[in-house]
Amino acid sequence: NFYLPLGVAPNFLINKKYYTIPMVIEESSVVAAASNAAKFWSQHGGFKTKIINTIKVGQVHLMYKGNPEKLKSFFDNRKKDLLNATKAITKNMEIRGGGILSLDLMNKCDILPYYFQLHLRFKTAEAMGANFINSCLECIAKEMMIYAKNDNLINEKKEELEIVMSILSNYVPECLVNVSVSCNIEDFKLKENIIDGSNFAKRMVNASKIAYIEPYRAVTNNKGIMNGIDALIIATGNDFRAIEAGAHAYASRSGQYRSLSTAYIKDNQFFMELTLPLALGTVGGLTNLHPMVNWSLELLGNPDVQELMAITASVGLAQNFAALKSLVTTGIQKGHMKMHLLNILNQFKANEKQKLAAINYFKTRLVSVNSVKNFLDKNVF
Amino acid sequence: NFYLPLGVAPNFLINKKYYTIPMVIEESSVVAAASNAAKFWSQHGGFKTKIINTIKVGQVHLMYKGNPEKLKSFFDNRKKDLLNATKAITKNMEIRGGGILSLDLMNKCDILPYYFQLHLRFKTAEAMGANFINSCLECIAKEMMIYAKNDNLINEKKEELEIVMSILSNYVPECLVNVSVSCNIEDFKLKENIIDGSNFAKRMVNASKIAYIEPYRAVTNNKGIMNGIDALIIATGNDFRAIEAGAHAYASRSGQYRSLSTAYIKDNQFFMELTLPLALGTVGGLTNLHPMVNWSLELLGNPDVQELMAITASVGLAQNFAALKSLVTTGIQKGHMKMHLLNILNQFKANEKQKLAAINYFKTRLVSVNSVKNFLDKNVF
Repeated sequence: NFYLPLGVAPNFLINKKYYTIPMVIEESSVVAAASNAAKFWSQHGGFKTKIINTIKVGQVHLMYKGNPEKLKSFFDNRKKDLLNATKAITKNMEIRGGGILSLDLMNKCDILPYYFQLHLRFKTAEAMGANFINSCLECIAKEMMIYAKNDNLINEKKEELEIVMSILSNYVPECLVNVSVSCNIEDFKLKENIIDGSNFAKRMVNASKIAYIEPYRAVTNNKGIMNGIDALIIATGNDFRAIEAGAHAYASRSGQYRSLSTAYIKDNQFFMELTLPLALGTVGGLTNLHPMVNWSLELLGNPDVQELMAITASVGLAQNFAALKSLVTTGIQKGHMKMHLLNILNQFKANEKQKLAAINYFKTRLVSVNSVKNFLDKNVF
Repeated sequence: NFYLPLGVAPNFLINKKYYTIPMVIEESSVVAAASNAAKFWSQHGGFKTKIINTIKVGQVHLMYKGNPEKLKSFFDNRKKDLLNATKAITKNMEIRGGGILSLDLMNKCDILPYYFQLHLRFKTAEAMGANFINSCLECIAKEMMIYAKNDNLINEKKEELEIVMSILSNYVPECLVNVSVSCNIEDFKLKENIIDGSNFAKRMVNASKIAYIEPYRAVTNNKGIMNGIDALIIATGNDFRAIEAGAHAYASRSGQYRSLSTAYIKDNQFFMELTLPLALGTVGGLTNLHPMVNWSLELLGNPDVQELMAITASVGLAQNFAALKSLVTTGIQKGHMKMHLLNILNQFKANEKQKLAAINYFKTRLVSVNSVKNFLDKNVF
């Protein structure tokens, strides 16, 4: 087994309820930043979230070399049969409020010759749903081939039908959560800030505008959001590659890669919000198998999926706020390097005298494992 | 501490050298799939890689309300001074072959009023370089403000200059690696395949074409690549959020989110390749601090950064090949569910009799923790 540090970030006030967030991440500065942001916003109404939807997507990709009209009428005739074929799989999911929401035939021949899709939308209740969705898709694909032979859709005249593959999509623009914070500009003042609330708010808004229009900045802005999100995703036994892929693809949906978060001023209030897709599960996969995942979910009060989406998005926004706050005030390096220095000093088991001397020495110098090691070798007290 | 399973995938033949890959991932099926793909390609010449470049990016974002021409001539006059100011930071990096490659002033006022950037390109030798880059940027930003006052760039006529923030970018389209595999179509036959090599190759190519044109599929295709890549990234102490952000943003660079990999047939050969940005480090950060990271790097033969990029990209392509292979032949669920079932059976400490009965029972049924638990409760041998 490989171990990663598990930290906790307290003081998250989300929809009027307090949470302590389990975070699995190698950078302790991420946990500290989340905690600081959470504390600040807990004094200003906390995080407010909105579940926009929880719909997931799966597709059967197929090539059909016959007349598209013939495929269309075959599909219309057999749609009910295809759905019925999945009953053994969907029965339990339907009891829990999930199931297949829609099944459509999509003609994509204009972008790739002979290419069609069965495009399905799902609700998967408390599960992330990958196994459920893939099982439904493979069942429908198999059934479709049987009916195709039966109904003479495929025949000797080279009107071939080929199922290329059946697979869920990690692009889930209909499985969205929004989270926001807001604060009077006059109160928008952090104790360590040398600038006033109005100036601070304007700097945050400028930083946000830049992340919207400039992809080089947008990518790093969103990376910062994911620092917080992935730490919680891992702690709760979810699949962070799925969440990463869905979030970044959503960030590029307009044709340009943009920030997922935004900050603005309206009616003398500073607002900051984040909208992103989060296809999560609280059952299935690792969630029931890993004792520390159980511990993490318990720490959160065993939330259901929608509550976990709300918490996760809030951690993402907290992280983004903390990073932007540092960037537009003291710069990112000050806090980061201090933490990095302390980690390295602890690693080398420096004593208190050495620590104080090192903190003073590295105020104006670049911290690295080597430079700290050299310093300690030369400063044995 | 939170633990994640650490597995090893042997038989990776990359640029004529054999590697055993450390992989940190909760899904054991990912490690098994990588191993299988590696074994197949080791019998067909292995993975061949090409480092396209290793350039990283950082920016100082600024707002200037004066005459752009005045800023331009200020920048041209002071460019050398700004670079000189970083000497204390860049000195050691230059000894190791890195440093600042370029510094340009970019006028972005057409997309955001008053917005300019100092756009810098870096080489960072064996380090991922985040601390180095951010330290250089903050130094240049600070120096710029001093010169701006000195040179009367900012004055009473509201010609304000504001440094909004200084930060590296995780978007690194010039830090690229390419990896490819190829095989005669006649030999392109996996023992478990029921289809012949030519048919198999055509199905792989169709799947690849679909992932190029259809974002719903592209996202999941790339997610599969990242399953392999992140597992190695974590094992080697690198920051997987940075790698994820860079890779997915690169996938959207054309204005549409597309697959990072491609498969094609040429001169009776099947080819598959992957190009993606990988900003990695073999020193700094966690790499020197985590004993299992040390172990992982040793297992790989303590590669330098370019070799680590080659290995990482190869694991990504292996993973992608394995996933596509399953998708276009047996379907993804067969192997996945079998592994999932065995994991759950082991978790519940099922005996051999129960395991055999369960494998038989779940051949036609959906595997979940609950369904397996129910089965075991009813089948106590």
